[in-house]
Amino acid sequence: MKDKGRITLLGLGDMGTALARAWLADGHPLTVWNRSPGKAEPLAAEGARVAGTVAEAVAASDLVVLCLLDDASVGAVLDGVDLTGKDVVNLTTGTPGEGRTRGAWVEKRGGRFLDGGVMAVPEMIGDPESGAYVFYSGSRDLFDAHRKALAVPAGTRYVGADAGYAALYDVALLSAMTGMFAGVSHAFALVRNEDVPLSGFADMLVGWLTAMAPYTHGIAGHLESGDYTEGVTSNLAMMTEGNATLLRTAEEQKVSPELLTPFMALMERRVADGHGDEDTTGVVDLLAR
Amino acid sequence: MKDKGRITLLGLGDMGTALARAWLADGHPLTVWNRSPGKAEPLAAEGARVAGTVAEAVAASDLVVLCLLDDASVGAVLDGVDLTGKDVVNLTTGTPGEGRTRGAWVEKRGGRFLDGGVMAVPEMIGDPESGAYVFYSGSRDLFDAHRKALAVPAGTRYVGADAGYAALYDVALLSAMTGMFAGVSHAFALVRNEDVPLSGFADMLVGWLTAMAPYTHGIAGHLESGDYTEGVTSNLAMMTEGNATLLRTAEEQKVSPELLTPFMALMERRVADGHGDEDTTGVVDLLAR
Ligand SMILES: NC(=O)c1ccc[n+]([C@@H]2O[C@H](COP(=O)([O-])OP(=O)(O)OC[C@H]3O[C@@H](n4cnc5c(N)ncnc54)[C@H](OP(=O)(O)O)[C@@H]3O)[C@@H](O)[C@H]2O)c1
Ligand SMILES: NC(=O)c1ccc[n+]([C@@H]2O[C@H](COP(=O)([O-])OP(=O)(O)OC[C@H]3O[C@@H](n4cnc5c(N)ncnc54)[C@H](OP(=O)(O)O)[C@@H]3O)[C@@H](O)[C@H]2O)c1
Repeated sequence: MKDKGRITLLGLGDMGTALARAWLADGHPLTVWNRSPGKAEPLAAEGARVAGTVAEAVAASDLVVLCLLDDASVGAVLDGVDLTGKDVVNLTTGTPGEGRTRGAWVEKRGGRFLDGGVMAVPEMIGDPESGAYVFYSGSRDLFDAHRKALAVPAGTRYVGADAGYAALYDVALLSAMTGMFAGVSHAFALVRNEDVPLSGFADMLVGWLTAMAPYTHGIAGHLESGDYTEGVTSNLAMMTEGNATLLRTAEEQKVSPELLTPFMALMERRVADGHGDEDTTGVVDLLAR
Repeated sequence: MKDKGRITLLGLGDMGTALARAWLADGHPLTVWNRSPGKAEPLAAEGARVAGTVAEAVAASDLVVLCLLDDASVGAVLDGVDLTGKDVVNLTTGTPGEGRTRGAWVEKRGGRFLDGGVMAVPEMIGDPESGAYVFYSGSRDLFDAHRKALAVPAGTRYVGADAGYAALYDVALLSAMTGMFAGVSHAFALVRNEDVPLSGFADMLVGWLTAMAPYTHGIAGHLESGDYTEGVTSNLAMMTEGNATLLRTAEEQKVSPELLTPFMALMERRVADGHGDEDTTGVVDLLAR
């Protein structure tokens, strides 16, 4: 068996520290650096080499991973550092545009670049059972060269050569989740002052959301075919009637409908535009600016 | 074995017709009535007895099920009909308040009342594998007396003696789903003009939403204990930073953020009020009017 590859990790916040532990536990020689040096101490005790400067840390390994607050801190940390021949993997959350620009910036400095979007909280890192994974995009060669090391903290999903795609997928999934928890918040607001056992209610909510989530496939199919009526069982005309019941119930329960009304308004616009026989796919069209 | 009980069904729209077929297939003597008589014809061929008037239909069975457009149509259909000794099950969608008022109205006319909220589309009715179920609330005696017949079209979940609770649970789950599909719509809008295979993307979305939905249990626990910081791994302070990335990405991708901003605004209000160490539970408080 080949020795485990050397890794340099810049940034030891909650996520960086979890990554460091996963690689150390897997036997990778690890060099770490953090702006505030105190955070490296416990890792040194666990076998990490602590670099005094970014340049020293970067010089220590071909594979250089960053997990910092934001893209600006990545620029600040790598500014003036020689990246010739380095494989730079950026696990700092950002936008697709930041991923692309940072990728070009690293390549101009002689490195290869892979952006990552971490779909996990630190507690899940290094636990193969947790379902944690990272979206990667950018240099396929870099990804292939370090595939095994990258797979240690979490599962890997390579989503394209465009360095912006990891962030795009990451943000898209987080955006969908944001909507889900907006809906969940409204649901709890409706029942919380009633004689409803909330943990049993949560079970029902989770079961229902899990059962309904696969309707997402229908929307994807509609966007692909351009026919938004295909296989529709519950159409917009019926749904907008249902929405009226949802709004009257919110009023009865003294709950503000503000988290639901923007989506309902777009559904109504589609119906008014003559699309009452479609499902909600057309709302995606209306969101385009 | 006891003979299958007689059932009367008022309303043969899409849902009513599916219910009728499930009971006929299970061998229940079924009397049907619909305002427009044409819809009863195919069911007559399948063994249903077709009543000429509501009064005749109601007289035919102790168990009288309604599946009409809305609560107003239930009032219109049952107006002046003798309900003495009848077990009235209302599978018409309405608000909790309508369920309660309709229950009292039926009881005043000598009947027992059970309200139902159907968590299914007609295609799922009568298929035990579909996961379809109905929330029931109101008379527990009625529910127990007809439990077997009620379980034929879909699973049953009795949620309380308050006749409004079936609608409350129904609407709460639909409201949560509405939020989820608002988020899903935003997610598709972000990626649709990119080189992203939409069906593969839908798989990822479904997997992610399914994995994240159980965080709902944490919100229920927080509402029960009153401590919204318990076991929080991703707190509001971190989430509002993440929200900024979501909004910048929406802008880059030329997608209106209107489906996400109301929830984000409430998260920010909680942070401004000093609750940055909590999760989103506090948003439920802010929705109270
Ligand atoms: N935690 C999560 O649940 C999670 C989940 C998915 C993705 N992520 C992403 O992972 C990244 C790190 O998250 P985290 O939770 O580890 O954050 P964190 O605990 O707040 O740590 C932030 C890190 O960035 C460093 N930093 C900030 N500004 C800097 C600058 N200008 N120059 C140099 N270093 C700077 C901090 O150094 P100091 O110690 O000196 O302050 C620290 O190491 C973020 O992009 C986050 O979005 C986190
Ligand atoms: N379809 C679904 O996916 C679904 C899912 C869950 C719950 N539900 C609920 O089930 C109920 C029925 O839905 P559906 O899909 O069967 O609706 P539908 O196909 O539109 O049928 C509506 C039924 O109501 C009758 N009706 C309307 N106004 C009436 C009035 N004033 N007097 C007498 N009858 C009247 C109609 O009679 P005519 O034939 O004479 O018009 C028809 O039988 C609704 O409350 C709906 O919310 C439906």
